[in-house]
Amino acid sequence: MAVIDALTVKELREKTGAGIMDCKTALAKTDGDIAKAIDFLREKGTLQASKKSDRKTGEGVIGSYIHSGGKIGVLIEVNCETDFVAKNEEFQELVKDLAMQVAGSFPEPLYVSKENVPAEVMEKEKEIYIKQAQESGKPPAVIEKIAAGKLEKFLSDVCLLEQTFIKDPETKIKELLTRKIAKIGENIQIRRFIKYAVGS
Amino acid sequence: MAVIDALTVKELREKTGAGIMDCKTALAKTDGDIAKAIDFLREKGTLQASKKSDRKTGEGVIGSYIHSGGKIGVLIEVNCETDFVAKNEEFQELVKDLAMQVAGSFPEPLYVSKENVPAEVMEKEKEIYIKQAQESGKPPAVIEKIAAGKLEKFLSDVCLLEQTFIKDPETKIKELLTRKIAKIGENIQIRRFIKYAVGS
Repeated sequence: MAVIDALTVKELREKTGAGIMDCKTALAKTDGDIAKAIDFLREKGTLQASKKSDRKTGEGVIGSYIHSGGKIGVLIEVNCETDFVAKNEEFQELVKDLAMQVAGSFPEPLYVSKENVPAEVMEKEKEIYIKQAQESGKPPAVIEKIAAGKLEKFLSDVCLLEQTFIKDPETKIKELLTRKIAKIGENIQIRRFIKYAVGS
Repeated sequence: MAVIDALTVKELREKTGAGIMDCKTALAKTDGDIAKAIDFLREKGTLQASKKSDRKTGEGVIGSYIHSGGKIGVLIEVNCETDFVAKNEEFQELVKDLAMQVAGSFPEPLYVSKENVPAEVMEKEKEIYIKQAQESGKPPAVIEKIAAGKLEKFLSDVCLLEQTFIKDPETKIKELLTRKIAKIGENIQIRRFIKYAVGS
């Protein structure tokens, strides 16, 4: 078993927000491989977070972000379970990061999660992708597969939770949330957001 | 004719944003009565502003206001004609004041102007007021008048432009805009706003 140095443990803690003992165990089990240790913790962390994600989130913070000298603005509501966490600095920084993500990311997020995309939007997109794919003259099963792939790409573009975090392109927003849920210890939900751009 | 002192002229300028000569003329014509001079200028100023209010407003600023430690947040878009005015400090203060107005005023504004209230909302409100008034057993003409009065009250509650300015209860928001249009010299329009409150 590899000797795990303190710096590697620290790096893993910063990346995942997991506790010292969890990080040591994860690195021990993965021979000090950070990427594998993250996967290990994610499996564990996700399990923990998914239990927490059933809990009611009635508190939270409204955050805003004004970009490009007032040409772009974002308002976002992020919920947690208690007012104690709503006042927590790390939670408030998360809200600011998420507002910045909505302001700055391209393509522009239109929905929080896949579940928020209206059925008619999904159907219309799929129809377009099927028509595009049909022009290739490929067999129906292949066309269906190409269209499904494009639909996934569309969802990962327009759903905030599916986007990659602009401050850390290795991390999806939903992973960032999972990590914060594990670290802060409360369910956290992005409830809604809106983006205004001058004249558009 | 009353002697108009410099302090009164200054006060009138601050209240209306009108030029020195206009203020002197207005005070001279109203024997130094500030309230009457404001009316005098408003008649003039409104005429000037209503000419400007036809002009295209493609520039502007997105402003935000976070209230009550993050429990309430507002995003607002205010348009003007040029980027020069968008960067003007007084214009930016106006945007901030308007965002604060939306965050803090009660009843909560739901629309920018009367013209933005959907016809079905107007009809439904009117119907309610007529039914309420009918219970008084008064004649139909009186009932119609009572309902019309209540509808006006409703509109002045829910339309931002019809509300009184929380920083100056003597002034309606539309008068504040008229004054700023006269002072800044460009058409100014509130395009849209939204208010989020945690958990509501």
